Amino acid sequence: MKFSKIPIATITRLSHYSRALEELEEQGLKVISSEKLAQYCEINSAQIRKDLAYFGEFGVRSVGYGVKELLFEIKKILGLNKIWHLGIIGMGNLGYALISHHNFSRQGYHFVAAFDIDPLKVGKMLPQGFPISLMADLGKIALERDIEIAVITTPAGKAQDVANLVIETPIRGILNFSPAHLHLPDGFVVHHIDFTVKLDQLAYRLVNLNPESSQPSTIKTSQISKNSL
Amino acid sequence: MKFSKIPIATITRLSHYSRALEELEEQGLKVISSEKLAQYCEINSAQIRKDLAYFGEFGVRSVGYGVKELLFEIKKILGLNKIWHLGIIGMGNLGYALISHHNFSRQGYHFVAAFDIDPLKVGKMLPQGFPISLMADLGKIALERDIEIAVITTPAGKAQDVANLVIETPIRGILNFSPAHLHLPDGFVVHHIDFTVKLDQLAYRLVNLNPESSQPSTIKTSQISKNSL
Repeated sequence: MKFSKIPIATITRLSHYSRALEELEEQGLKVISSEKLAQYCEINSAQIRKDLAYFGEFGVRSVGYGVKELLFEIKKILGLNKIWHLGIIGMGNLGYALISHHNFSRQGYHFVAAFDIDPLKVGKMLPQGFPISLMADLGKIALERDIEIAVITTPAGKAQDVANLVIETPIRGILNFSPAHLHLPDGFVVHHIDFTVKLDQLAYRLVNLNPESSQPSTIKTSQISKNSL
Repeated sequence: MKFSKIPIATITRLSHYSRALEELEEQGLKVISSEKLAQYCEINSAQIRKDLAYFGEFGVRSVGYGVKELLFEIKKILGLNKIWHLGIIGMGNLGYALISHHNFSRQGYHFVAAFDIDPLKVGKMLPQGFPISLMADLGKIALERDIEIAVITTPAGKAQDVANLVIETPIRGILNFSPAHLHLPDGFVVHHIDFTVKLDQLAYRLVNLNPESSQPSTIKTSQISKNSL
């Protein structure tokens, strides 16, 4: 198993497989073929088999995958058979939106602390059961609550300052929602979420929807006009 | 040019190239080699050449790409040489966070309307210069303000109801921030943003950071332990 050769696209697809398998498990399904799983994930089944082959052998030929077992294995691969502790930095609208989003804890990501520099916000109790902490206490609280991932939701101008503070703590992962490009030394894993990249994909597909059809509700979204540029 | 064969990953990378070229243009750069652009985007240069080859010939051999020209061409490909009109549906914390995020308008995505079902919110003037509208007025306002993309930031339980209303308007694109899986007829382009998929990638890379090193600040983030599963 050459882990260093695993494409990031495979890891992303594993996330989607695990979301699908969770839904299928909730529906009571015990076994699924790679074809059915592929259909459910809107992907081709060869891709699923190829992605899983990086990590060993799964499933039984001509029977399929055990839903529960495959979900367990994928979660193990992704490091999701544990609870991850998150600290959120920047309690503006986005900070509040994320900390109260149920999807995170459902997927094993638990917010255990929140930070801000605004003295009017610091000390305020959150529905999650802890108060907003002073940014200067990041190091102390990261140790106490074992924060592993910092979620940065500050304005762009503050994000690098925050990253510089994170470096001094045991936190090694950063999810950056600010538009700033962060510079960190080796040994840190930084992922950047830029909503507008998704909008670019959407815009591209909208521009390439067949413009000649007069019945938009019958256009296949996968149908791309060759003449539209 | 076979547009239907263009992988979505290529479109995503084009977005990243355009962000990089914008930054380089702001820095005053006129010409860049595919190697330098590749370095800047943390990707290999063969990939950039391959991605651009789908759309024609760009750049001059052994000279490079004109920064401004390539940016213009990529924006044309992505459909970003125009202003897109967005309407946001669901004015909770996430709605407010998105509508006030400068990155959208910088990239050509302008929020022109906001909707909610809460009578306490409807009518409230936003800093963007328009009030929050009643959800029931979506069709009328979509026509008046030429809304092209609906950004859904409602709770999961309301998202399909919203999508059903969108179907009755001229809007054909949906960016879905709710955790609900939306069902729409053909002819609509729906993209789903799930923050936790990015967290899965982050978690995977954190689990596979070399656990044996005692000097985390010198670990390459690309260095993957083969023994860590």
